[in-house]
Amino acid sequence: MGIEGRNMYELAKELFPICRSITGEGVRETFQILKRQEEDLKVFEIPTGIPIFDWKVPKEWNIRDAYIENESGEKIVDFKKNNLHVLGYSIPVNRYLSLEELKEILYTLPEQPEAIPYRTSYYKERYGFCLSENQKDALKEGRYHIVIDSELKEGSMTYGEIMIPGDTEKEILLSTYICHPSMANNECSGPSLAISLSRAIKRMKKRKYTYRIVFVPETIGAIAYLSRNLEYLKKHVEAGFVLTCVGDDRAYSMIESRYGNSLADKALETILKQRGRTYKRYSYLERGSDERQYCAPGVDLPVCTFCRSKFGEYKEYHTSLDNMEILSPEGFQGSFDVMMDVILALEYNEYYQVTCLCEPQLGARGLYPDMNISGKDGLKAIMAVRDMIGYADGKNDLFDLSSRIQVPVRQMLPYIDQFLENDLFRIVKEGK
Amino acid sequence: MGIEGRNMYELAKELFPICRSITGEGVRETFQILKRQEEDLKVFEIPTGIPIFDWKVPKEWNIRDAYIENESGEKIVDFKKNNLHVLGYSIPVNRYLSLEELKEILYTLPEQPEAIPYRTSYYKERYGFCLSENQKDALKEGRYHIVIDSELKEGSMTYGEIMIPGDTEKEILLSTYICHPSMANNECSGPSLAISLSRAIKRMKKRKYTYRIVFVPETIGAIAYLSRNLEYLKKHVEAGFVLTCVGDDRAYSMIESRYGNSLADKALETILKQRGRTYKRYSYLERGSDERQYCAPGVDLPVCTFCRSKFGEYKEYHTSLDNMEILSPEGFQGSFDVMMDVILALEYNEYYQVTCLCEPQLGARGLYPDMNISGKDGLKAIMAVRDMIGYADGKNDLFDLSSRIQVPVRQMLPYIDQFLENDLFRIVKEGK
Amino acid sequence: MGIEGRNMYELAKELFPICRSITGEGVRETFQILKRQEEDLKVFEIPTGIPIFDWKVPKEWNIRDAYIENESGEKIVDFKKNNLHVLGYSIPVNRYLSLEELKEILYTLPEQPEAIPYRTSYYKERYGFCLSENQKDALKEGRYHIVIDSELKEGSMTYGEIMIPGDTEKEILLSTYICHPSMANNECSGPSLAISLSRAIKRMKKRKYTYRIVFVPETIGAIAYLSRNLEYLKKHVEAGFVLTCVGDDRAYSMIESRYGNSLADKALETILKQRGRTYKRYSYLERGSDERQYCAPGVDLPVCTFCRSKFGEYKEYHTSLDNMEILSPEGFQGSFDVMMDVILALEYNEYYQVTCLCEPQLGARGLYPDMNISGKDGLKAIMAVRDMIGYADGKNDLFDLSSRIQVPVRQMLPYIDQFLENDLFRIVKEGK
Repeated sequence: MGIEGRNMYELAKELFPICRSITGEGVRETFQILKRQEEDLKVFEIPTGIPIFDWKVPKEWNIRDAYIENESGEKIVDFKKNNLHVLGYSIPVNRYLSLEELKEILYTLPEQPEAIPYRTSYYKERYGFCLSENQKDALKEGRYHIVIDSELKEGSMTYGEIMIPGDTEKEILLSTYICHPSMANNECSGPSLAISLSRAIKRMKKRKYTYRIVFVPETIGAIAYLSRNLEYLKKHVEAGFVLTCVGDDRAYSMIESRYGNSLADKALETILKQRGRTYKRYSYLERGSDERQYCAPGVDLPVCTFCRSKFGEYKEYHTSLDNMEILSPEGFQGSFDVMMDVILALEYNEYYQVTCLCEPQLGARGLYPDMNISGKDGLKAIMAVRDMIGYADGKNDLFDLSSRIQVPVRQMLPYIDQFLENDLFRIVKEGK
Repeated sequence: MGIEGRNMYELAKELFPICRSITGEGVRETFQILKRQEEDLKVFEIPTGIPIFDWKVPKEWNIRDAYIENESGEKIVDFKKNNLHVLGYSIPVNRYLSLEELKEILYTLPEQPEAIPYRTSYYKERYGFCLSENQKDALKEGRYHIVIDSELKEGSMTYGEIMIPGDTEKEILLSTYICHPSMANNECSGPSLAISLSRAIKRMKKRKYTYRIVFVPETIGAIAYLSRNLEYLKKHVEAGFVLTCVGDDRAYSMIESRYGNSLADKALETILKQRGRTYKRYSYLERGSDERQYCAPGVDLPVCTFCRSKFGEYKEYHTSLDNMEILSPEGFQGSFDVMMDVILALEYNEYYQVTCLCEPQLGARGLYPDMNISGKDGLKAIMAVRDMIGYADGKNDLFDLSSRIQVPVRQMLPYIDQFLENDLFRIVKEGK
Repeated sequence: MGIEGRNMYELAKELFPICRSITGEGVRETFQILKRQEEDLKVFEIPTGIPIFDWKVPKEWNIRDAYIENESGEKIVDFKKNNLHVLGYSIPVNRYLSLEELKEILYTLPEQPEAIPYRTSYYKERYGFCLSENQKDALKEGRYHIVIDSELKEGSMTYGEIMIPGDTEKEILLSTYICHPSMANNECSGPSLAISLSRAIKRMKKRKYTYRIVFVPETIGAIAYLSRNLEYLKKHVEAGFVLTCVGDDRAYSMIESRYGNSLADKALETILKQRGRTYKRYSYLERGSDERQYCAPGVDLPVCTFCRSKFGEYKEYHTSLDNMEILSPEGFQGSFDVMMDVILALEYNEYYQVTCLCEPQLGARGLYPDMNISGKDGLKAIMAVRDMIGYADGKNDLFDLSSRIQVPVRQMLPYIDQFLENDLFRIVKEGK
């Protein structure tokens, strides 16, 4: 395993305790931590009330404390113990309630009695508490004191962006979100991977693409970001990936773009297919993260989503059980490797054309695959080279070529370098 | 079950006894009955000998009586008991024959010994009798008197047409035939359904399409009709349906247009698929009714055929067993419902485009699906709405949209009305 | 079985003993035999060193004798007994070796201990002997005398061509090779079939196509031929077939062109499918004969390969076991029949369009299929005719039509003649 897996895991752990929401100090605190890892991260604020397509930037929410106290003055539900205990965006309250009244503002998960569910109410002003079914069952008749020390005000919504310039203005977009309180896979894993990818992309010797790495509150943040950048993005983004739930090691998944036919889909699927582990391809009908906005009609960006265990498909999702225990350095490393393979493949993605007619004389050109590879593997290497040349007709991009000749992209890259250096391949516009 | 099923069944019963053929008084009598139900039906005559593409209008045939008498003067085969007993288009004859001679002009169905087969000889002048194998087996040696009191003359061929104007000149074509003697599914069911559809279409509050409902003798009548109307039809018909064998309740079937890719095929198949009952899709290689002419090369109308049990695929077909017993009001009602769903879907069939970028704020717009639907159904309704919007990109017609998001057309229509009213959807030209 | 099967078998037998290589007297001797069968065969020479795309014409190789003698003066391996014993293109040598030294220049097939393998070294100057594993095992310690009386010189490379003119300059290309020593299926069968096809094509009463039949040393000869003729071939060849391993009776196979979508692929697959025997379709990834050059990027000829048992897929391939015993007149006849069906189908391959609207009156036109065919076969004949007309819309070529209506090409041809004569069909440009 590479060193990146461990780094990402540690960063996720640092981000975990913070109480984030779609606005507020938790998001700003998160960006301070991320900026320490990646100084090129720029942070932006958009004021409450600014129109963003069909929506407006919401009020800013902050919370200091929240609890339920029983008659003995005992805090039986305490935001300071777990920030999931409060319904996200709860308005301030300080009241005494009977048990019956209390129960009306409690949220539990009867089917997972030990888990605290994650609930929010961004667009309807109310308040409430989330707790485990077991905690709720233990409540006795009596008088309860509920306190939520929160504030909903005209403020601003915060987002971040890293731009890594390349040789062209064509862009690869990576997008993740920073708006959930203490949940690990469905929050902390995404920004951690994005930071590691950012640093790895900067280390690349050559970059055809400019990379844009976006950190937004899910949904409303993506809408805000698009409302500010859409025309530019439509002209320049060639492939984009939403990164979410990328820290566990139980599955590989992708969610298609609206028609599943963008360069992003092709790149991600080709790489996942060639890693020799099963993966699941979800249709756009099963969308749920910011691919919803990036792929909306009229937005039409070539974006798909990369996950390990997809949100909604693992049992800890949106509960207090989505904690650091379900993540692992190995899980992060797998995500990192997939995305770096995707990025490398996109950097090499061209329509290649062989420069001579009929089969070339590989021996005389010194282009026979390394003869130290003997036996079956050597033969496979020779066949790979012959097939790369046999279909280098300027009509297949790298992914089509790789799929057609059944040779993994990774294995093709060194030969492509060699063939370009030796003028056996040239890069052409598609179909020319 | 709706009231239409019963109405259609009764009309079919009224049409059943008449001795129709491709020309003659039986057809005219049929039109009188139909006109009583639907006054807008217009009846046309085309004189014998008029060229119609590769053919000519045939002589007109009428028959008063026909029988076979045995030596005792007993009518052992009698046209007045069942008009299938005479070979259709038999020329007049009055002769005495030995049993051996008689047998040469008899038609039976050995594999269905109790059934009288249906046979005709439109284009070769001859005569004959059809009877059950059992009747034939009972014939004894002796002298038989055969009489056919028919007439083959210069006359005319009769057909009918109902035109129901809509907001545009674009047309939906419905076509059925009126040329078989006493058979129920393979004759009387088609015109009965066509009349009920005509009345229901007139009751629609709004019609984008003009409806053309055609009643012709099969094959030769369709050829005649096309020879008179082809250029207009090619310009205006957007979808058409041949209606045949639509009164039983044993199956749902469609026969594809020549390439199975017309709007008619797509509309009918989408609706059949969404009714939750199996159906059978037959290739154009298994054609047999007037889709043969409507889809012929150079005619090229977007027409497919709708049946319950397809002609040739049910055992009573083309025999005296195809009688009112195999029809039912339920069978008719099912046909009516399918065709009205198809018509409604075609009326709504547009390329819809959502008017805002990114996901709209459904709550603020008052467009959340009815919250009285709770639990799983409520969630399904919300997902249906989100997916309708998610693919309303002006690239899917109603049928594509319905298939893609797996939401039945029926369920989509009220939302479409709502979204159009609220300017959340607009109608666009395909792909614009 | 036709007489051709026997003729081809006998010709292959005559060609078998000759020691051919990619150049030299063996090739010339082969052409003398072929020329006796087909006087229109023209033979060409290209001098050593002439550049041909990425290659040069190699030196000419000839061999008079070769053997390994043991200490007793006994010739234990003798080129005169089997010309596979010498490594093809071996340079001259006359040396004494120890057993250990000898073993370094011996080639065997341990997994087929009784077979002499076939090996060459065209582009690296060396020498060696091929023998069976059993022969090698029998070698005792001692001193061996090895002699190869060969010559590698500036000379020329030989190839042949038969041109059979047709009504147009459009061409069908047949290509086979003449460069292997004594092997039967993977050498002698190809030229034998090509000669029989040439004579049969000449006997055809009418030829739309000009036929070009090419006999080249595999790979280097095809490259040379293409370097001389490419521009003309690209303009004129509509379909081409490499003929190799066509004399056994164990399988039918085809190897696709680069994308498997040329007219040649369609023609050959349609015919193979309709012969009622299984066949195997190999992808271009499994190529190995001159389709490698004909289908290379930029060459792009519409060529696929026809085999019985495909090279590399039968156990005798490239060994002394590929001898006349695995061929048979029946095997040859099957190949001949397939290729003549392909050729006939291509000659008839047009976009047919019916000349009348709606179904034609077949009876009046005297075009009903022969009524002597009665019962089910008669009905099938009528349906075949109806379906031919039903899809004669100028949008299907003969192969598409045949596949779509499920009527074998062979069965359609007489009707096409009839329909053209009776002006019921006309030939149109695709889609007009």
